Amino acid sequence: MAQEGILIVFSGFSGAGKGTIMKELLKRYPDTYALSVSATTRAPRPGETEGIEYFFKTREEFEKMIEKQELIEYARYVENYYGTPKAYVEEQLLKGKDVILEIEIQGALNIKKMFPRALLLFVATCDAKTLKERLLGRGTETLDVIHARLKRAGEESQGMENYDYLVVNEDLEHTVEQVHSIICNEHKRVSHNLDFIARIREDLEGFLKGE
Amino acid sequence: MAQEGILIVFSGFSGAGKGTIMKELLKRYPDTYALSVSATTRAPRPGETEGIEYFFKTREEFEKMIEKQELIEYARYVENYYGTPKAYVEEQLLKGKDVILEIEIQGALNIKKMFPRALLLFVATCDAKTLKERLLGRGTETLDVIHARLKRAGEESQGMENYDYLVVNEDLEHTVEQVHSIICNEHKRVSHNLDFIARIREDLEGFLKGE
Repeated sequence: MAQEGILIVFSGFSGAGKGTIMKELLKRYPDTYALSVSATTRAPRPGETEGIEYFFKTREEFEKMIEKQELIEYARYVENYYGTPKAYVEEQLLKGKDVILEIEIQGALNIKKMFPRALLLFVATCDAKTLKERLLGRGTETLDVIHARLKRAGEESQGMENYDYLVVNEDLEHTVEQVHSIICNEHKRVSHNLDFIARIREDLEGFLKGE
Repeated sequence: MAQEGILIVFSGFSGAGKGTIMKELLKRYPDTYALSVSATTRAPRPGETEGIEYFFKTREEFEKMIEKQELIEYARYVENYYGTPKAYVEEQLLKGKDVILEIEIQGALNIKKMFPRALLLFVATCDAKTLKERLLGRGTETLDVIHARLKRAGEESQGMENYDYLVVNEDLEHTVEQVHSIICNEHKRVSHNLDFIARIREDLEGFLKGE
């Protein structure tokens, strides 16, 4: 019954709590999930460990990865590259781990093209007002930053229809279990059980021939 | 947050236990589920009640239903018609009930055409051997009947890829909760939440214009 893992793309409004949900999932079900580790050309900060926070690469190494199509997706911010190494993700999937990738809409759609069976989850608040209040409530950001985040949320909301599931995060405890349940059920999808179907079909045919 | 109900098509091998699963679902969650009631031209048997086991119709009434496209699907066995009245299903869905329809593969595919958002579940045993043993274990059927059922299972297995989920019934308690969980999660599908998405998008735009 060993089944390949599922690639899970996690997106959502900044302030909707997707980071916390992911962290809780990994804490509660460490044998089930693996978090995709990004590669970057930026220098490690104190306390960061190779292979935990990032895979640290030189620019030459990173550009070779791009060239060899070893990245699922990548982007360049200011001076540095950031990207998702394909090898790590595929290795974890083969081990049967469900791999979580936190990524924004454009990247999510690219991943769906490369991994059509990827599961795309979008995390939102129960309404726009709540999102605004959460961002204001943190009290750590300027109004300009909050405005920019709301603008970004507006842009992101344009792509929500491309996701598979909408997760409304009202209560963390409930949301974490709901996300876990959605992922567990995904393993029951017919498209993830074609081997099972082929086997039972063959065995049924065998019985009838044998009689 | 009132959402329309989901139409659930339940198929599976004879002997895999789908009837028992359905009965348990309705018993445990009577406010969530409604079982579609078929119409038939056969005479009521002692103890059968109009609208519970069947909607009893004359042949003229039934043929008028066919003509007026009031049936989701229908079939004729020997002398009698059997079919699924559309009105009852649609009424329950509008009330927010998840409507369960027990139907075989050909009917299931027709329903998916009429209701593209219908959820198609296929119930199987963990393997073919177990199915055979269950059918033998009942001890109530002749070998000819068992052979016919296995043959039918073989035919049905040809269409399994068209279903959304594969439910392997090893333990009734577990299976019932798993089916319930698959259906609950289906309500979180983006395609069932387009109103929510439209609203949050509009509200986010409103904030940005208002500022």
